[in-house]
Amino acid sequence: MNADEQSKTHFDLIVVGGGSGGLAGAFRAAEYGARVALLEPALLGGTCVNVGCVPKKAMWLAADIAGKLRMAQSLGFSIDQPPQQRCELDWPTFIVHRQRYIANIHESYRKRLDASGIVLAPMRAHLLDARTVECENGARLSAPRILIATGGHAVKPDMPGAELGGTSDDFFSWNAAPERVAIIGAGYIAVELAGVLQALGSRVEVFARGARLLEGFDAELTKQLSDDYCQSGVRLHFDRAVAALEADGVRVRLRDADGALSEAFDKVLFATGRRPNSAKLGLQQLGVKLDARGHIVVDELHATSVAGVNAVGDVTTDVQLTPVAIAAARRLMDRVYGKREGRLDQQNIPTVVFAHPPIGKVGLTEDEARARHGDNLHIYRAGFRPMLYALAESPQRSLFKLICVGEERRVVGIHLLGEAADEMLQGFAVALKRGITLDDLRDTVAIHPTSAEEVVLMR
Amino acid sequence: MNADEQSKTHFDLIVVGGGSGGLAGAFRAAEYGARVALLEPALLGGTCVNVGCVPKKAMWLAADIAGKLRMAQSLGFSIDQPPQQRCELDWPTFIVHRQRYIANIHESYRKRLDASGIVLAPMRAHLLDARTVECENGARLSAPRILIATGGHAVKPDMPGAELGGTSDDFFSWNAAPERVAIIGAGYIAVELAGVLQALGSRVEVFARGARLLEGFDAELTKQLSDDYCQSGVRLHFDRAVAALEADGVRVRLRDADGALSEAFDKVLFATGRRPNSAKLGLQQLGVKLDARGHIVVDELHATSVAGVNAVGDVTTDVQLTPVAIAAARRLMDRVYGKREGRLDQQNIPTVVFAHPPIGKVGLTEDEARARHGDNLHIYRAGFRPMLYALAESPQRSLFKLICVGEERRVVGIHLLGEAADEMLQGFAVALKRGITLDDLRDTVAIHPTSAEEVVLMR
Repeated sequence: MNADEQSKTHFDLIVVGGGSGGLAGAFRAAEYGARVALLEPALLGGTCVNVGCVPKKAMWLAADIAGKLRMAQSLGFSIDQPPQQRCELDWPTFIVHRQRYIANIHESYRKRLDASGIVLAPMRAHLLDARTVECENGARLSAPRILIATGGHAVKPDMPGAELGGTSDDFFSWNAAPERVAIIGAGYIAVELAGVLQALGSRVEVFARGARLLEGFDAELTKQLSDDYCQSGVRLHFDRAVAALEADGVRVRLRDADGALSEAFDKVLFATGRRPNSAKLGLQQLGVKLDARGHIVVDELHATSVAGVNAVGDVTTDVQLTPVAIAAARRLMDRVYGKREGRLDQQNIPTVVFAHPPIGKVGLTEDEARARHGDNLHIYRAGFRPMLYALAESPQRSLFKLICVGEERRVVGIHLLGEAADEMLQGFAVALKRGITLDDLRDTVAIHPTSAEEVVLMR
Repeated sequence: MNADEQSKTHFDLIVVGGGSGGLAGAFRAAEYGARVALLEPALLGGTCVNVGCVPKKAMWLAADIAGKLRMAQSLGFSIDQPPQQRCELDWPTFIVHRQRYIANIHESYRKRLDASGIVLAPMRAHLLDARTVECENGARLSAPRILIATGGHAVKPDMPGAELGGTSDDFFSWNAAPERVAIIGAGYIAVELAGVLQALGSRVEVFARGARLLEGFDAELTKQLSDDYCQSGVRLHFDRAVAALEADGVRVRLRDADGALSEAFDKVLFATGRRPNSAKLGLQQLGVKLDARGHIVVDELHATSVAGVNAVGDVTTDVQLTPVAIAAARRLMDRVYGKREGRLDQQNIPTVVFAHPPIGKVGLTEDEARARHGDNLHIYRAGFRPMLYALAESPQRSLFKLICVGEERRVVGIHLLGEAADEMLQGFAVALKRGITLDDLRDTVAIHPTSAEEVVLMR
């Protein structure tokens, strides 16, 4: 596509960024007949498909299998396993599977773009004005509407020796489980990487600035998760402010703010935050409002402060979840091209962290509910060992928790930690969003024997 | 307890049968302060705990692990596996785990009975009248209310050589996977046993009288399940009326109605039906109404035709599911002793068959919905390969299906076949029972990447 051709081309929509949100918007707009240009200089699918949800889930599945292999031995399966319970996954073999899976997604995106008549320009671009985008080759595209969906990226904190550590991006380029790994952080990325690496044979230590894992999840469940992690061998260090990394031969040590030096690690990963990809897009010149950390400020309709310019996904002030970006983009296109009312309701968004075991939530935590509803709360819990773990004499326990409000026991929060919580939550999220009371749960006949039935059997 | 003591004892409730329903009723009544006697000559927990749901699920978990081990090899885990993909589970080891799990349930029941002050009489009994039960040792107990919860049992069809085949009860006494197994039947027990045995290394053939598996489940899903079973090596024979079993040395052959003789099998299992344990209870003398197959006829309040005599569970005309028996018993006691309104709603009972993969349903199948709502239906499907199976290049596919009615797309049926369907269904069952439309599903943000998200992303 050169500038000459382009000057002849008129689009209805230009999408800047080919991650999940951008693609979802482009596809939906094309379904309504819009002529769409999609600008993406890197791999289609963005963080989620390439260095996020998808390869993370693949590694989680491998880690889950590794855990099952360990249980298999105690259950009576004859498996030759090397000493030290070190699980022998040949990473290069597995990574071929993982990357083939991802390549298939790329391929299906490409086919669908072709079938939809969407013009894919594999290049960087910036906005000249609210209707014009200039590509890095100088080509200019124009359209009455621009959607920015450039996502975000992992960042390292500004500390001495930070270059000695990596981020989740680096993790996805590894070809083996390092023997000893330090993970700095306590959010979902830290928890997910720690769980996967420990299950795949690394000895993992987590260094958290605060006093707990997963701020924003229910504190009782994250306490149980910490116990599960400790049981599996992960060493958790809370209230530890890492101030610097220091080389020790090919290894790395962590220097605390108070001067203490850690043991040496083969690898150190920062899971300390992500930043929006909002630079070099010409946003500030155009007057698109950003927040202090560079996120594009959007309203409920995913409009920016500049008319005709929309934004979705991790580059915005929205909740940073792939399905939120996708749903926001689709709703936007439904409104613009489909003339359909409706906006993405950002209340009661379910979310799961692929820990070992997984942990999920929808609605309010107990702390949040208490802040909002005072003491008018009724809390129900089910703590148990799933049958497989009981059979295998594995200590891993599940903990489910319901937060209910008022005499009628309106359910305002559902929190699930345990095997299969990842697949269990979606249906309960539909129910909670629809509006249910404890009786609605109790009136539903249990499915026996499952873990999920514990949610409807709480008293 | 001798007759002399007993003549001094007054109970509020006599429960005949210590299966899941009887126990649930006894415990709930005792919570309200009722003096309860429980009569159970065999193991506590009935079919479910001893020769049903619980050991079945344990075997299913072992079979699931066996499947994961096979996938593990192709994913890059180094596992020494014997030739022929025959999975090496040492059944005696596993059965120790399984029976320990069951013994723990017995133990917890016994503790709870003691703590509740429930008198457990480990003997058979029959009703003398609507207030009096006579035990096999001659002791007589009386109470103003009697709950019958004696459950059911597997039966073999009346055919020549039937003694050469076993039932699910026999399966639970096996100590190894037979090399070749024939299973006669196409209901949930046939499907579950076939899946488990094939996964654990047997070569399984299923002989079904009809043209499909799992009547009562959605036909499209059971077709997919049949495909999955064939892929895994199970040989399915439909429209085959087995008329006799014939010995061939230590093996057994199946003779069809048309005279054809099958190959020889090491074991043959009948999964052709169950019958209620309603004999020898004195019911007919008392005038308790039974249906043609011997089930106690109960109304919505679980009253029999004789005042003061209630019945729950597989001995009744109710749906034959443990959670239904439990819920019915609890509701009954809530009404009788807790003075609480409410009855068990037997609409929209979710149920799962632990096939490989599991299959679950809540609400109407497409055929049922069409019979009820004509052509005013909207059907939505999601067919896909879960990530783990795609990574491992395993052909097993998931198929989800929504049955919606009318312009508003009211959801009247949810059907799930695939990995994790067993844990996924419960929440959707709550939502369906509460009343949802397709938009309620679509308005719930997806949890990515999961299988469950496919339910809310259908178009």
